[in-house]
Amino acid sequence: MELTARELAALVDGQVEGDADVKLHGFAKIEEAGPGEITFIANPKYGHYIETTQAAVVLVNEDFPNTREGVTLIRVKDPYSTLAHLLKLAESSKPQPKGIEQPCHIGEGTEPPSNCYIGAFAYIGKGVSLGEGVKIYPHSYIGDGTIIGRNTVIRSGVQIYEGCRIGNDCIIHSGAVIGADGFGFAPAGSGYDKIPQTGIVEIADNVEIGANTCVDRATFGRTYIGEGTKLDNLIQVAHNVSIGKANVFASQTGIAGSTKIGDMNMVGGQVGFAGHITVGDRNAIGAQSGIPNNVGDDKRLLGYPAVDARQFARTQVYLKKLNELFNRK
Amino acid sequence: MELTARELAALVDGQVEGDADVKLHGFAKIEEAGPGEITFIANPKYGHYIETTQAAVVLVNEDFPNTREGVTLIRVKDPYSTLAHLLKLAESSKPQPKGIEQPCHIGEGTEPPSNCYIGAFAYIGKGVSLGEGVKIYPHSYIGDGTIIGRNTVIRSGVQIYEGCRIGNDCIIHSGAVIGADGFGFAPAGSGYDKIPQTGIVEIADNVEIGANTCVDRATFGRTYIGEGTKLDNLIQVAHNVSIGKANVFASQTGIAGSTKIGDMNMVGGQVGFAGHITVGDRNAIGAQSGIPNNVGDDKRLLGYPAVDARQFARTQVYLKKLNELFNRK
Amino acid sequence: MELTARELAALVDGQVEGDADVKLHGFAKIEEAGPGEITFIANPKYGHYIETTQAAVVLVNEDFPNTREGVTLIRVKDPYSTLAHLLKLAESSKPQPKGIEQPCHIGEGTEPPSNCYIGAFAYIGKGVSLGEGVKIYPHSYIGDGTIIGRNTVIRSGVQIYEGCRIGNDCIIHSGAVIGADGFGFAPAGSGYDKIPQTGIVEIADNVEIGANTCVDRATFGRTYIGEGTKLDNLIQVAHNVSIGKANVFASQTGIAGSTKIGDMNMVGGQVGFAGHITVGDRNAIGAQSGIPNNVGDDKRLLGYPAVDARQFARTQVYLKKLNELFNRK
Repeated sequence: MELTARELAALVDGQVEGDADVKLHGFAKIEEAGPGEITFIANPKYGHYIETTQAAVVLVNEDFPNTREGVTLIRVKDPYSTLAHLLKLAESSKPQPKGIEQPCHIGEGTEPPSNCYIGAFAYIGKGVSLGEGVKIYPHSYIGDGTIIGRNTVIRSGVQIYEGCRIGNDCIIHSGAVIGADGFGFAPAGSGYDKIPQTGIVEIADNVEIGANTCVDRATFGRTYIGEGTKLDNLIQVAHNVSIGKANVFASQTGIAGSTKIGDMNMVGGQVGFAGHITVGDRNAIGAQSGIPNNVGDDKRLLGYPAVDARQFARTQVYLKKLNELFNRK
Repeated sequence: MELTARELAALVDGQVEGDADVKLHGFAKIEEAGPGEITFIANPKYGHYIETTQAAVVLVNEDFPNTREGVTLIRVKDPYSTLAHLLKLAESSKPQPKGIEQPCHIGEGTEPPSNCYIGAFAYIGKGVSLGEGVKIYPHSYIGDGTIIGRNTVIRSGVQIYEGCRIGNDCIIHSGAVIGADGFGFAPAGSGYDKIPQTGIVEIADNVEIGANTCVDRATFGRTYIGEGTKLDNLIQVAHNVSIGKANVFASQTGIAGSTKIGDMNMVGGQVGFAGHITVGDRNAIGAQSGIPNNVGDDKRLLGYPAVDARQFARTQVYLKKLNELFNRK
Repeated sequence: MELTARELAALVDGQVEGDADVKLHGFAKIEEAGPGEITFIANPKYGHYIETTQAAVVLVNEDFPNTREGVTLIRVKDPYSTLAHLLKLAESSKPQPKGIEQPCHIGEGTEPPSNCYIGAFAYIGKGVSLGEGVKIYPHSYIGDGTIIGRNTVIRSGVQIYEGCRIGNDCIIHSGAVIGADGFGFAPAGSGYDKIPQTGIVEIADNVEIGANTCVDRATFGRTYIGEGTKLDNLIQVAHNVSIGKANVFASQTGIAGSTKIGDMNMVGGQVGFAGHITVGDRNAIGAQSGIPNNVGDDKRLLGYPAVDARQFARTQVYLKKLNELFNRK
């Protein structure tokens, strides 16, 4: 990618302010950007960097108060999504792997579509259905009878157990394990009997699953992840969990068995959800919270156990003053 | 599997109540079950589903109060373990992988038994001892000199470092790492010197280890997991830890170095155990607890740091009323 | 290894006290050591084991108060680092894998140095630069254009995405994922648009990365881990994080996006760092702490949210007495 600020502005429907002929070749954070690099300010908190940045061009809001002469701005409606759009353009121009590398293992009854990528040492079981344009990187394992939708990308070293269903346009990162046995045991004598986990995992379209994240298969029926939901790395989704649409879960969060989560929730890192509870829609749950009970809609929760985020803040203030309270006469 | 309610009842030593000739072909949760499906009610909390279930047959307790006509029940002593038994029967009738797929790597001095499964791209080092009936799925790595007992199943993408010992009838799920170096460093100058981890991991019989769980090798001696203990996904077991028999650890729990844990403990998800402590038998430790010190037997603990579970509950009540306390004159 | 106490003492510049001719062949913990085994006492807390140990030789401090006749001591300046030194000697005498095992995949433009090890089923992309003496174990994936320094060891099943840079003398344990996409999405309609992650991960010299740990690539620029820093297992390092020199992070800790961490910090297990914060040097942060805000230097922190460790301890005392406070008239 090599273009001028003028060409860039045309591409993103923005207004140039400054040198429209400056040449651009890459992206950088505002505090690290140098000549030829594009950067952005989306959050007013970082506005002061305009004074010092060495970037060639800064994407800013239409009403950004420029306090520095000589810097080239491109004003757009939403600098962050404009940046995302530009990064996508740059990304899509990268060469993509294709074809079937040898040796790989393709089981009986599995027919790779002509435009797929299957990396060396990939293992694809029997009767697997692969959609158009799928990419399966080296060292991935796709169990018998699994269905993978079109344009889905399975990065290297992903393990998908038998019989699972992955939608279209998904990305599954390295080391993720989909469909391992749920954790189910019945007490028996002085130990435990394994309860076979005979269900599956079903993942809808446009889901992204982070590195080393685990989604266990259901005891029976399915563990489900709804359309457009994004899971970060090292997350645990236990058996029989059902997650709705467009949720975002940060890293290392765990969801215990049979819990149902609605749509459009935002969940911080290292959160724990108890099993067999129901969580509604559009909640914001702070990092490291513990959710022991049902949650409605549109809550802001924090703490262990989680309470309203304002109550959590108030309690922290009180805790710091307990000393004073104990010393009252 | 295809059988009638009468045949099913005979199989599990139960009493049919209703249509003994109804045909059955699978299992489902009570709220999702349809025609031809078997379900169960073990917990009275879910008893009300009897009114609405579409299941062909419901496994219930001998004294379950049936409030609905026309539904077919099978009364048994323990519906949950009966279900587990039936799922096992169904599971055991599934075809199992066998033979040695090519290409795989089998090191010098390693002799696979005739009735094993070794998947393509599995790497088995030198002088590895494999028991009768072991299954080693694709992309698993078994380091030199490791011993794996009979009928143990190593799912795809498991990494076992050199010299470890895995018992009989174990299941190790994808992505688990057994025997990586413990985390040991000695301060040296302005940094750290690595302390070589020369011990092993030893896992007793009938242990199940979840996906992406890590069990580190000892500095010297062994890290040990006792008979019948079950570890869920994404758990950390540090070097020199010793865990006894028939414990159950839920996902994302971590056990720091040299800690000793007894028998029959039940540990929730995301719990942390400090290093160099001793935990007794039959404790129940709630999710996200932090265990900084020794624990005796038969405790119910919760919190960070963990306290008696009732005390934790009381403290939570007080915390919600701190406001009131601060406002007292 | 087989030597006498006299030879051992000469090797470590120590003084024998007792039978200098006793023969030694291995190491063990003091409470488990038997004939022919070397053990150590570094912490006075374990000094009492001198009464009961069966070890042939005990490494102790120069001023260790020996209370038992007939045991052989070797007095050294620092028993723990002496032990580390001895373990290294023993380790270095073990046979090391070398050569290139087949089948493996080596992409166009990648030239393995003559003294490397590349295991069977390793996948090395195009234009990868491998330093002298690197070891790449089976099932590891090294993406196109990655640079790996000399003597670095990549254990089995490590996944390194394209374009990353790994320094000299690093160890990366099985299942670690380096360079997967950072977790970046822009709200779009009723869902999210992926923000391509176009940066890299750069890891300096002498870094050790634990099993199943994840270090995500930057949105642009780099995610950075400084010289001599050690990460335990199952850690999450999010995109654009920068970590300085000689830090030690225990297992299951998570660091959210764009956070900057200085040098020589010691961080316990299951700690969470918020995103976009700055942490200074030489802090000690207790297990399971939550760090929501900037941290200076030389702090001892504990709790969720983290406070000074002494304040945390005091608050715990007060919490246990809340009952009493509520019952005051």
